[in-house]
Amino acid sequence: MTSSQRNQDSALAALLAPDLLVMLAESPGDVAAETEELHPKTLADVAEAMPWDRVADLLRALPAARAADVLEYLDEELRTEVLEAMSTEQAAALISQMTPDERADILEELEEETADEILHDLPDAERQETERLLQYETDSAGGLMTTEFVSVSQDLSMEEALTIVRTAARSGRKEAMHAVYVTDARGALVGVMSLRELVAAPEGSTVLDVAWTEVVKVTATADRAEVSDLISEYDLVAIPVVDGFERILGVITVDDVIDAIVEEQTEDVQKLGAVQPLEEPYFTVGFWSVARKRVGWLVVLFIGEMFTGTAMRAYEDTLAQALALTLFIPLIISSGGNSGAQSATLITRALAVGDVEIRDAMRILLREFGQGIVLGTCLGAIGFVRALMWGNSTTLSAVVALTLVMVVLVGSVVGAMLPLVFKRLGFDPAIASSPFVASLVDVTGLVVYFNIARALLRLP
Amino acid sequence: MTSSQRNQDSALAALLAPDLLVMLAESPGDVAAETEELHPKTLADVAEAMPWDRVADLLRALPAARAADVLEYLDEELRTEVLEAMSTEQAAALISQMTPDERADILEELEEETADEILHDLPDAERQETERLLQYETDSAGGLMTTEFVSVSQDLSMEEALTIVRTAARSGRKEAMHAVYVTDARGALVGVMSLRELVAAPEGSTVLDVAWTEVVKVTATADRAEVSDLISEYDLVAIPVVDGFERILGVITVDDVIDAIVEEQTEDVQKLGAVQPLEEPYFTVGFWSVARKRVGWLVVLFIGEMFTGTAMRAYEDTLAQALALTLFIPLIISSGGNSGAQSATLITRALAVGDVEIRDAMRILLREFGQGIVLGTCLGAIGFVRALMWGNSTTLSAVVALTLVMVVLVGSVVGAMLPLVFKRLGFDPAIASSPFVASLVDVTGLVVYFNIARALLRLP
Repeated sequence: MTSSQRNQDSALAALLAPDLLVMLAESPGDVAAETEELHPKTLADVAEAMPWDRVADLLRALPAARAADVLEYLDEELRTEVLEAMSTEQAAALISQMTPDERADILEELEEETADEILHDLPDAERQETERLLQYETDSAGGLMTTEFVSVSQDLSMEEALTIVRTAARSGRKEAMHAVYVTDARGALVGVMSLRELVAAPEGSTVLDVAWTEVVKVTATADRAEVSDLISEYDLVAIPVVDGFERILGVITVDDVIDAIVEEQTEDVQKLGAVQPLEEPYFTVGFWSVARKRVGWLVVLFIGEMFTGTAMRAYEDTLAQALALTLFIPLIISSGGNSGAQSATLITRALAVGDVEIRDAMRILLREFGQGIVLGTCLGAIGFVRALMWGNSTTLSAVVALTLVMVVLVGSVVGAMLPLVFKRLGFDPAIASSPFVASLVDVTGLVVYFNIARALLRLP
Repeated sequence: MTSSQRNQDSALAALLAPDLLVMLAESPGDVAAETEELHPKTLADVAEAMPWDRVADLLRALPAARAADVLEYLDEELRTEVLEAMSTEQAAALISQMTPDERADILEELEEETADEILHDLPDAERQETERLLQYETDSAGGLMTTEFVSVSQDLSMEEALTIVRTAARSGRKEAMHAVYVTDARGALVGVMSLRELVAAPEGSTVLDVAWTEVVKVTATADRAEVSDLISEYDLVAIPVVDGFERILGVITVDDVIDAIVEEQTEDVQKLGAVQPLEEPYFTVGFWSVARKRVGWLVVLFIGEMFTGTAMRAYEDTLAQALALTLFIPLIISSGGNSGAQSATLITRALAVGDVEIRDAMRILLREFGQGIVLGTCLGAIGFVRALMWGNSTTLSAVVALTLVMVVLVGSVVGAMLPLVFKRLGFDPAIASSPFVASLVDVTGLVVYFNIARALLRLP
């Protein structure tokens, strides 16, 4: 399909679905051949446009390996429903056709009891493999890797290596074959070559002539953020996972890493919005679970914001003398919060993508100080005019303007420094969410405001 | 390197740099052979640890193709400096060794005059190719693609196809070879196969036997977000770009798409922080440019927030009668803003990753209504106790508590609906930034507060 058709993907799938439903009812034997050339993702789209209880029929009408491919692309919610509605034997037959990493991922989505039953029904080799993968943390390199890959001994000629790879490729198993790994006699990973290098190798060359001996690799306990950084920095399509003896345990492919990158960024965005990461799609997470992931930060921010009340009580006399001051309170504190949110966002993101480091703190401080002055002066000028227009004295208008400059300055500097401080302390910089920065700056803003007012308006 | 060593990358590079500097001074002829097995990214790290004016020496000591690889991984700022300090001939010699897409990207980073001079110095074929690529928008499929790829005619046998691919792979040119494309007599794209499928093909099979005829492709004008969605949905390592006649213009590889995904997400995060996307790294963007990208939203939000003043003026009599009400203003409006920021973040992100759609609006509304009630009740309860502790009457404390419930409810619902409304209107949902939602909710919060106060406290 071309990109312009892309938004019509689901529309196309909806058109194909009725035909396929008829075929499933009348001549299910034809379904496999008729849909052979479709990408499994397209077939998954069609399945999603069908009533969910017919999806199992579709999967049954396909060869098991093909059905497993389609299952992989199915929407998570639907996949769980379909698998849980199938008999354990059917589900196990499908799942045994998947790559080991997908198998483990899908079992983790299911209810524990169902997953255990299916696991128990898998052929011995697949079961052990899957159990081993399930032991790794979902977010670790071990949890991302697949255990089927192709490796060759360093002593081979390229002709021998090509034969091994060709045999593996023809076997119908689903090895990750983005790269071919080279091992020494002890089984340690000593080299890597791409399929392209394998194909391009001159006649008569050996594996050692062609392979690269500096291999970028990770340990099984490495965090997925580390894995995705390496894949992206070194432009890899796959990265090997090794144990403490440098023996290769598995391979993480770029498609799984893209998913990991997107999930990682979702967590960052949610943290920046003062929500504890949901870790699952919006509708998949239960109502009370969402509430729990929100209430923590809301309460912390609420308690922090209570200090604004404490601050205002300290200036109650000042307020009583000049009630007009209250009219500008929301305007002033929100300006500090907004500029702080901007700076915090810019620095948190720059840290995440590696554009700035903790050692740049002084340079950032100077820059944000300058930004604060410039932006504060803009808002101060507008605020001054507005205050005059509301019929306030020049002095009170000046109080508002001066406070705005100070508050935006404080907001910019505090917003920029907080992510650096959190990172320095070993926390996630994304804790410095917009609401968090705003809460911190609000109290400061009020204190600045009342002190400037007292000084210029000669209030108590 | 293993993951545990990863943070020591730059430390390792810093250790290697002095040795390399000595070698460059004493026996530059040895540099190429000594660094041969290093990944170009590692060598780029070493270069970054050297004084910047010696980096050009290092690049000169390497074969041109290798130097071009290192240049590709070099930090953008340093790369620009190094290229602009080189003679035009030297820079052109290096840049002509790069893949067409990198060549175009790098020229776009340079000052226009320098870029024009280098472009003019490139060999004719490379120059025309590059000029053609430079015509596409940076953010479009055309701007991302490389024009060197391998295609075979559909009439060939697999043996013939393998010979073509092998010759291309041995040519030393840098074609994207993640997949081999199949064309018909008119040059239109009719199929695709992976290198793995090529290697695995049974003896005597033809291209048409092996290739997939449903090819996922994009047009040159497609947006990079569309490209990355397709690559990630279909788990591709490369996607072909076609013209209006289905002829293949180029190929976008997954490594460029990962960069595009990260940039796309940076823009989203910055929008959510109420900053117009910077589009370049934090320190690369000029001071005034950053200020311009911030001041727009700050002023809009400031003007929006002025309505809080208008609202408060309307209730000046109420305020004058019960000054204690002012003490809770920041607490109340920030609670609405915070819950709104949470909802807006959750929904904006869920829209971005496709977890929710506009058609889910009613389901989202109900859920966020529930969240608002639950979260508002929590904050209301804490607020009630706090107000009593500050010595306020039970009635005033009840006003605060009731207002908090209402404000958090409004915040959650408005925050969740805004991104959907923006998307429906054809805007980017990420406009619904935390500060934006907060500003909207602040005015509502005040009006709710004063009305509840008037009713319960029988104020004017």
